[in-house]
Amino acid sequence: MATHKLLLLPGDGIGPEVMREVEKLVSWFRARGIGFETETDLVGGSAYDAHKVSITEDAMKRAQAADAVLFGAVGGPKWDNVPYAVRPEAGLLRLRKDLGLFANLRPAICYPALADASSLKREVVEGLDIMIVRELTGGVYFGEPKELVTLEDGSQRAVDTQLYTTGEIERITRVAFDLAKKRRNKVSSAEKSNVMKTGVLWRQVVTKIHKAEFADVQLEHVLADNCAMQLVKNPKQFDVIVTDNLFGDILSDIAAMLTGSLGMLPSASLGAVDPVTGSRKALYEPVHGSAPDIAGKGLANPLAMIGSFGMALRYSFDLLNEADLLDKAIANVLASGTRTKDIAPSGTNAVGTQELGDAIVKEL
Amino acid sequence: MATHKLLLLPGDGIGPEVMREVEKLVSWFRARGIGFETETDLVGGSAYDAHKVSITEDAMKRAQAADAVLFGAVGGPKWDNVPYAVRPEAGLLRLRKDLGLFANLRPAICYPALADASSLKREVVEGLDIMIVRELTGGVYFGEPKELVTLEDGSQRAVDTQLYTTGEIERITRVAFDLAKKRRNKVSSAEKSNVMKTGVLWRQVVTKIHKAEFADVQLEHVLADNCAMQLVKNPKQFDVIVTDNLFGDILSDIAAMLTGSLGMLPSASLGAVDPVTGSRKALYEPVHGSAPDIAGKGLANPLAMIGSFGMALRYSFDLLNEADLLDKAIANVLASGTRTKDIAPSGTNAVGTQELGDAIVKEL
Ligand SMILES: CC(C)[C@H](C(=O)O)[C@@H](O)C(=O)O
Ligand SMILES: CC(C)[C@H](C(=O)O)[C@@H](O)C(=O)O
Repeated sequence: MATHKLLLLPGDGIGPEVMREVEKLVSWFRARGIGFETETDLVGGSAYDAHKVSITEDAMKRAQAADAVLFGAVGGPKWDNVPYAVRPEAGLLRLRKDLGLFANLRPAICYPALADASSLKREVVEGLDIMIVRELTGGVYFGEPKELVTLEDGSQRAVDTQLYTTGEIERITRVAFDLAKKRRNKVSSAEKSNVMKTGVLWRQVVTKIHKAEFADVQLEHVLADNCAMQLVKNPKQFDVIVTDNLFGDILSDIAAMLTGSLGMLPSASLGAVDPVTGSRKALYEPVHGSAPDIAGKGLANPLAMIGSFGMALRYSFDLLNEADLLDKAIANVLASGTRTKDIAPSGTNAVGTQELGDAIVKEL
Repeated sequence: MATHKLLLLPGDGIGPEVMREVEKLVSWFRARGIGFETETDLVGGSAYDAHKVSITEDAMKRAQAADAVLFGAVGGPKWDNVPYAVRPEAGLLRLRKDLGLFANLRPAICYPALADASSLKREVVEGLDIMIVRELTGGVYFGEPKELVTLEDGSQRAVDTQLYTTGEIERITRVAFDLAKKRRNKVSSAEKSNVMKTGVLWRQVVTKIHKAEFADVQLEHVLADNCAMQLVKNPKQFDVIVTDNLFGDILSDIAAMLTGSLGMLPSASLGAVDPVTGSRKALYEPVHGSAPDIAGKGLANPLAMIGSFGMALRYSFDLLNEADLLDKAIANVLASGTRTKDIAPSGTNAVGTQELGDAIVKEL
């Protein structure tokens, strides 16, 4: 029996609660002969509280050794004033960078049953199914210099550097086109080439890869500000959107919010395929954050975390049947009306995090 | 009679069409004793076609000498492949930078009569009235190095620099708080202080100015990605949003699109108040772009351009009665059902650019 090594990093806020529901699923699959091995470690504020760092060297080693990392969420007001270098987010950024997870896949799907939870009109979002492909290890997140200096007169000067190379753009472009071929065959590339040199290079490289390798896929270039507008106006015009780290952060959050299903959306962050083993490093996390306001109350929707586990089944372990089974269980449970508060129609009874997790297990 | 020197820069696409309607208004006010002097010049693609630059030195001199610049729109597919340094947008960026127009005010207002034109549910946007205050002369738009270099192996490397100083943040913060005091007394400051050093400095400076000078105004800090989400989810929670040049570009476009009134929204870009004359440099432009797809067809909505002229009356010339008169004329014409295609309910008859402009003059 093949073993699949999972590192669980529940993190802060609602992270531990939603991760607990995934553990139930891991047990369920293990009892049916799938060789999952799990370890758990700290990240974010909880790592800071225990070790004064946002992730320990030991946890990083485990992440490097794992076949997949499942990540909950990090951050909260409790750590608003910890030093910048050890703030909760630093743990997540280090995982992304050190594991080389350059491709962040963020599906934004509007479940018909939940269309009314969107702030957009039903007809604008019903049936929405777009995929944001965000570059995750470059751009302004990691470029140097990144510094805050005090000048002679006591005032300060802060600098961040947005940097991209041809190679970085090529590999994320290929991920986007490969995905589009399995979907509706359209890629929209978003940048600000009218203002940024990185945008100019981005557009050039995407155009080149398109011509050379994916000429049969439809490509459009769209300015990032216009892309944000179009997402609000008519999101169904999009299939795959490929964009840089910072624009991807914002555009994927907009797309997620459109669906009315924020608590439902998973994401995958993937590294390069190892030419020898054929495997790739991967981290799976919900699109939602740590939601400190509802943490510890058993109210959080575990479906984004469960869906992230489903993505791991699919992308890291090639367990396609199991992934389908899980997706179907989620759909059936939703259809039966079992919902947490964020997605329950007002006036109906909502269940808690654990009950929803249990319902999925039972449905399986 | 005081003279008010206006420089009209219609630009490209629908710019000239909508500017023509403003000229009618200028004539109307002039006939009633307001001393407007106007000059007209080229900017953007039309300047490139005539002079191979996006704005001439002569036009820049006129802009420096004017009391206010009225700007239409620039850009279009025709100029997609002109050299970066002389692309249409460069003319606008130079005007902003050389005139020192650091404060960009972008109101996002949902006119009740137009609420149904929004892709959002009526109850989410009806009555929306927020003001985005965008820093306009700093950040990644102008920071150096900004370059695209070819490396020895033939691959390329692009860099943009996001840079902010204490002074730059202080002055835009004061603009935001001053506006909030005349509105609903709340400022939301948006940055990515969890990832960017410029965000860390931004948050520090806003906090300091708030404490020292505006402690009676409500202040909240919000991460830019979350701000984008909240704009989609529940935009009415905001009053004034203050943010940097790049986030402001995106967030203000989202806010504009929410209202369903994109063709209606004006903006003002203001410089520092001259301590001697008490005046300030200013440029007024519609939030919408050059809309090449409908250019030259007489379909464009002139109200954003007309509203921009209204902002000039108010902010540059202190002609408050005249500005009120114009606002009222716009509201009355809209209420009467005279609308261009973008804002006409489907199934009703739409008027063209000129007819709508004429209707405003008649209403005055
Ligand atoms: C937590 C934060 C550092 C992160 C980001 O900005 O990338 C988050 O917003 C995300 O989108 O995953
Ligand atoms: C035309 C372009 C340079 C400009 C910008 O990015 O600032 C526009 O999008 C705007 O928002 O005024």
